[in-house]
Amino acid sequence: MEGITKEHIADWFTGLQDTICRSLEQLDGKAIFHEDQWMRPEGGGGRSRVIKNGNLIEKGGVNFSAVSGPTPTKILHALKLPEAEFFATGVSIVLHPENPWVPIIHMNVRYFEMSNGIWWFGGGIDLTPHFVIKEKAKNFHQHLKTTCDKHSPDFYPKFKNWADDYFFVKHREETRGVGGIFFDRLTDNEGRPKDDQWKFVQDVGETFIPAYSDAVKQLRDRDWTDADKVWQKIRRGRYVEFNLVHDKGTKFGLDTNGRTESILMSLPPEAKWEYEHQPETDLQKETLELLKKGIDWVNA
Amino acid sequence: MEGITKEHIADWFTGLQDTICRSLEQLDGKAIFHEDQWMRPEGGGGRSRVIKNGNLIEKGGVNFSAVSGPTPTKILHALKLPEAEFFATGVSIVLHPENPWVPIIHMNVRYFEMSNGIWWFGGGIDLTPHFVIKEKAKNFHQHLKTTCDKHSPDFYPKFKNWADDYFFVKHREETRGVGGIFFDRLTDNEGRPKDDQWKFVQDVGETFIPAYSDAVKQLRDRDWTDADKVWQKIRRGRYVEFNLVHDKGTKFGLDTNGRTESILMSLPPEAKWEYEHQPETDLQKETLELLKKGIDWVNA
Repeated sequence: MEGITKEHIADWFTGLQDTICRSLEQLDGKAIFHEDQWMRPEGGGGRSRVIKNGNLIEKGGVNFSAVSGPTPTKILHALKLPEAEFFATGVSIVLHPENPWVPIIHMNVRYFEMSNGIWWFGGGIDLTPHFVIKEKAKNFHQHLKTTCDKHSPDFYPKFKNWADDYFFVKHREETRGVGGIFFDRLTDNEGRPKDDQWKFVQDVGETFIPAYSDAVKQLRDRDWTDADKVWQKIRRGRYVEFNLVHDKGTKFGLDTNGRTESILMSLPPEAKWEYEHQPETDLQKETLELLKKGIDWVNA
Repeated sequence: MEGITKEHIADWFTGLQDTICRSLEQLDGKAIFHEDQWMRPEGGGGRSRVIKNGNLIEKGGVNFSAVSGPTPTKILHALKLPEAEFFATGVSIVLHPENPWVPIIHMNVRYFEMSNGIWWFGGGIDLTPHFVIKEKAKNFHQHLKTTCDKHSPDFYPKFKNWADDYFFVKHREETRGVGGIFFDRLTDNEGRPKDDQWKFVQDVGETFIPAYSDAVKQLRDRDWTDADKVWQKIRRGRYVEFNLVHDKGTKFGLDTNGRTESILMSLPPEAKWEYEHQPETDLQKETLELLKKGIDWVNA
């Protein structure tokens, strides 16, 4: 427990970033990551890695950061705490594929602590298919459930519902995609020692590559039409809306003077908006019908 | 003064919408507006008018609404007032041109009143060129200054600075475009009777067509390259960022269950994001240098 220091966690996250980038380059087979190291004037910094125009990934980022300094006032107010120093580290991923059949994926794992002794883990993985294919959504959730179940039978149902609520584009009354898991403020208040929570977060991080590899399998080789590409760009528009209007991480980053280019690496290469756009094919219609909360994907 | 009723104001705004739509159809020469009438369950409704794939306008909207009901809690809290009914009416315009040389334009004029007797006008016009051309920006501001000066010598300097502050993409440290005028909470507290404020707002509304006609002149016939179109889409991405992250009207509309398709008519037909995108031509570089507050365009 005392063994789990912030340095250890940050160090492990850099290793995770390395492993994931290497695996994604293999999976892509063409593009490689470009790295930018940056420093934050108030303390800490990060390693942004972006990839573009690959065989599989049109635009994506795998970012690591470890930042520190005075805790932002917003957090102190929310927690009703006096001034304290904070430290936050994590890995964030968003990948936008070229092929409209391949889903967008997002993962974040993070750790936060303050000089007053408060600490927590947070994170999540979610999948945003442009076309929802049930078996694929089921398989994705199965990966997440398997990971969760190794740690607690409560985790998957709780974190799956949390993702349904979190990744919700309220003004469109639709979920961002088929969801996944989301968790925050994971600390030792539920009788699980820090070491156990940390092992869970590590496991989530290591679920990314197998889950994504399965998610792209077969789909990446499917042909697409111009109409499929238009639909993809419309769906990407919704992704932009979620990230800029609702996503708390994005909001927090922009509000606290984070590195804009790293935060907004989540935005797609190209998006479209059309007034009152309507689905045209059966699969498009079915996709919209499946963008809702509460679907039991594992048993679908 | 008592003569200026909410019904009169709303009625005049529908007339403004008609006039502007007719003029824009003439200016476009190809596309015509499509109208949707909608009702708000809590009270009132609107007339959304959209246009697309024209000679000049690729995607645009000219919306009228007049809504009423219990005042949203946010406003009551901000004003520290007990419950009251509200009425709000206005015309909102955003036009995205096809040709990257032609600027994006936005206008809003609005009136708000509550059953407790509080009322105010608000509004603004601002121009967002993809390529800033100084004489065009100067001419646009001259239109606005002429309109303002007819009512008070204080208006243009005050409302021009207000626009610089309001239309600011904070996380990019750049203005949305070359600005214009912005004003809010215009009431009789400065010794100007309601009738005078209303005449000013009407004049702003009627400035839209001459100002925009001048803004597109010559530019609409310029040829453009694929690279110009890419640049346009990158700049449109910034427009999306402003509207979804910073624009108070958009936020208020989405927060209060407004009609999403009418609110988000402001988004462009197509936008692009590229990690660490850099300007390539001198004009692109100059454009970025001119996206800042405090430029005295009238005397530029």
